[in-house]
Amino acid sequence: MKRLDTRQEDFAATFAALHGWEASGDQQVEERVREILQAVRKRGNAALLEYTARFDRLELADAAALEIPLGDCAAALAALPAKGRAALQAAAERIREYHQQQLVPSWEITDAFGNQLGQRVLPLQRVGIYVPGGKAAYPSSVLMNALPAKVAGVQEIIMTVPTPGGEVNPWVLAAAAVAGVDRVFRVGGAQAVAALAYGTESVPAVDKIVGPGNIYVATAKRMVFGKVGIDMIAGPSEILVLSDGSAPAEWLAWDLLSQAEHDEIAQSIFITWDAAHLEAVASAVDKALTELDRAPIARTSWQNRGALILARDALEACTLANQVAPEHLELAVEEPRALLPQITNAGAIFLGIHTCEALGDYVAGPNHVLPTGGSARFSSPLGVYDFIKRTSLIEASPAGVTELASLAKTLAEAEGLTAHARSAAARIQSGQ
Amino acid sequence: MKRLDTRQEDFAATFAALHGWEASGDQQVEERVREILQAVRKRGNAALLEYTARFDRLELADAAALEIPLGDCAAALAALPAKGRAALQAAAERIREYHQQQLVPSWEITDAFGNQLGQRVLPLQRVGIYVPGGKAAYPSSVLMNALPAKVAGVQEIIMTVPTPGGEVNPWVLAAAAVAGVDRVFRVGGAQAVAALAYGTESVPAVDKIVGPGNIYVATAKRMVFGKVGIDMIAGPSEILVLSDGSAPAEWLAWDLLSQAEHDEIAQSIFITWDAAHLEAVASAVDKALTELDRAPIARTSWQNRGALILARDALEACTLANQVAPEHLELAVEEPRALLPQITNAGAIFLGIHTCEALGDYVAGPNHVLPTGGSARFSSPLGVYDFIKRTSLIEASPAGVTELASLAKTLAEAEGLTAHARSAAARIQSGQ
Repeated sequence: MKRLDTRQEDFAATFAALHGWEASGDQQVEERVREILQAVRKRGNAALLEYTARFDRLELADAAALEIPLGDCAAALAALPAKGRAALQAAAERIREYHQQQLVPSWEITDAFGNQLGQRVLPLQRVGIYVPGGKAAYPSSVLMNALPAKVAGVQEIIMTVPTPGGEVNPWVLAAAAVAGVDRVFRVGGAQAVAALAYGTESVPAVDKIVGPGNIYVATAKRMVFGKVGIDMIAGPSEILVLSDGSAPAEWLAWDLLSQAEHDEIAQSIFITWDAAHLEAVASAVDKALTELDRAPIARTSWQNRGALILARDALEACTLANQVAPEHLELAVEEPRALLPQITNAGAIFLGIHTCEALGDYVAGPNHVLPTGGSARFSSPLGVYDFIKRTSLIEASPAGVTELASLAKTLAEAEGLTAHARSAAARIQSGQ
Repeated sequence: MKRLDTRQEDFAATFAALHGWEASGDQQVEERVREILQAVRKRGNAALLEYTARFDRLELADAAALEIPLGDCAAALAALPAKGRAALQAAAERIREYHQQQLVPSWEITDAFGNQLGQRVLPLQRVGIYVPGGKAAYPSSVLMNALPAKVAGVQEIIMTVPTPGGEVNPWVLAAAAVAGVDRVFRVGGAQAVAALAYGTESVPAVDKIVGPGNIYVATAKRMVFGKVGIDMIAGPSEILVLSDGSAPAEWLAWDLLSQAEHDEIAQSIFITWDAAHLEAVASAVDKALTELDRAPIARTSWQNRGALILARDALEACTLANQVAPEHLELAVEEPRALLPQITNAGAIFLGIHTCEALGDYVAGPNHVLPTGGSARFSSPLGVYDFIKRTSLIEASPAGVTELASLAKTLAEAEGLTAHARSAAARIQSGQ
């Protein structure tokens, strides 16, 4: 963990190096992924069965066994402990309600000449959701990826999840049932992305693929982009906690570690302008680290990428936060609304000392798929807007076309495009 | 040009091959672009000056000469023929008005427990617009890329345009003045993309890069994606004209060729269920081809990639259109609104025989940057939504946090994430 003080001479450079993160392509991974994509594209189910045997140590009897029946999802949901089932359902309901606010209507307007102009909004038809398998299989991730698609009106949601050694996480199946996923396939890795992008005899090709995954999945998504849509390529998770000392140090320690426990390369940054509070949080993190199930992961993350930063004041702290453009930003201060206008770059902002980041991971309602690696400067949380497409509508009226066509003709001639000009000119005559 | 009939036995396969287009990465291009990106990143202006000398045959005196003063843009606008200047300004006004409809507000809601949830919408701070130089320098492209950013509220728009041999297109500079571009640099190619992504001593780094370009520009944009946002990677332009025979064949010939004249690999597809009309359009295209300034380009496009398709009826024609998911779709029929509900995939739809595609290229108002290569299945025209970012807001109330934190704790425990669970648990106590 780094301790920094903004008054240090080399602070700017050290800080830039701290939060800079560059995803680097791995050529070997790219070559293996390219091979897998081609194999699935050419040989469909046969390739899926082979890769599933090789990578997931799972020999399936036939292609039909690639699909997990929806009945299994319903059964998994029914078999959950009552409290867990209720929590999953309550979370889904809150996520659904939040995302409904993101729906936008189609519209049409008429110009002064009687021409009609509009924008039609339609849901994507079929979407694929990649869900990681094994230990990092998170039911919350199923809800956060599937529900915005559902709210958008996507007709068919296809989920893929690897089941290494045949092991299925019942919470993930249960979440699929709660979210209303339409079909589930037990495939993972680049082969799952290939199946969703190109389709096989069993897996239908989709229009867009979303969901987190390892380097093979991320590389495959990058490669099929264009053939299908993809969501952003997620980097390591980050939290930045900005504190005026009004929250107990222990609370903030848990908050910082709730990112660190995800991943050795996750990043937790703490900024305050209260030196004593900074020391208290430092001690609280050390103590909390001894109480975690995933302590080795959290400790590595905190040691290598964590930071405690002493700023001059709240305003300087906000400037630093904007430079990081963090995925998660906690404003653990007494008057969070006073700081809010200073923050321009963040995936999600958690206001006030009661609002820990974990609320947003599960149940608050907003999506937990957020821009990482500084991309909050230019991108947004996953949302309904990722599962719709817009089409422009133009309908010139016989009376109104002359005005438009005359202007178009002038500009087409300026660009030296004869057919454009003639095409427009033909309509001028029609309108006269 | 291919003539197809949907009643042919091999129609489905021939049709799929016709409209299938796959952008393939070129490894040699990638290596050269990677080198250019690294050079500009490391050596800034010095590298820009070198590449501009090498690729644009333009020796600039110093780094200051990289910038084209805004005064030059204003002067170019003032020097345009009056009719051209008025057309450019009228087009800008219509584009601005259309895009204003795309603005979405920030919002906040309060849940039953008094917790506040919201979504804040802010414009990107600084955006880069790449404008191709030389012959394919289009003022309309400047308007279509800059104005949505301007409407979104982007604070600073940086334009780059190569000036091969020092040649500047006055229409492009004039369009920059009309659109309100803030700074203009005479650089192009991968080096311009690098300058916008990483910044140099003169060119400020931006948050997102948009605009069309050749294979070097497209490859560079792909490579800097993540560091900055990018718009879609455009493929060849396409038009699909669907006709019931109510428009004169000659009009439709101009419409088809207005795509073909853009590019040898542009694609124009004509579909009708009236065999005589199909023959009339075929002849009209042949005749129109003799009258074009850019006849060689248009002829190559039409011969290699054009198609005339005889369908059984309007419904089948719509199904084919959805399979193509064309960038531009003309419904050149008497009752276009009757067919509209059948169309699910298209970048822009031009309704009725008066609405030629060229109107949309210049002045109708909707954006002319549209999804190509079938990506209208999952993506949208360039719009204000490409120049904003959303941030989720969560503010738990002291009274409302208990409900949320209890649910979050249950789900965090199911996922085996101790710090998440403890972080939530700490807030349950606070709320009691």
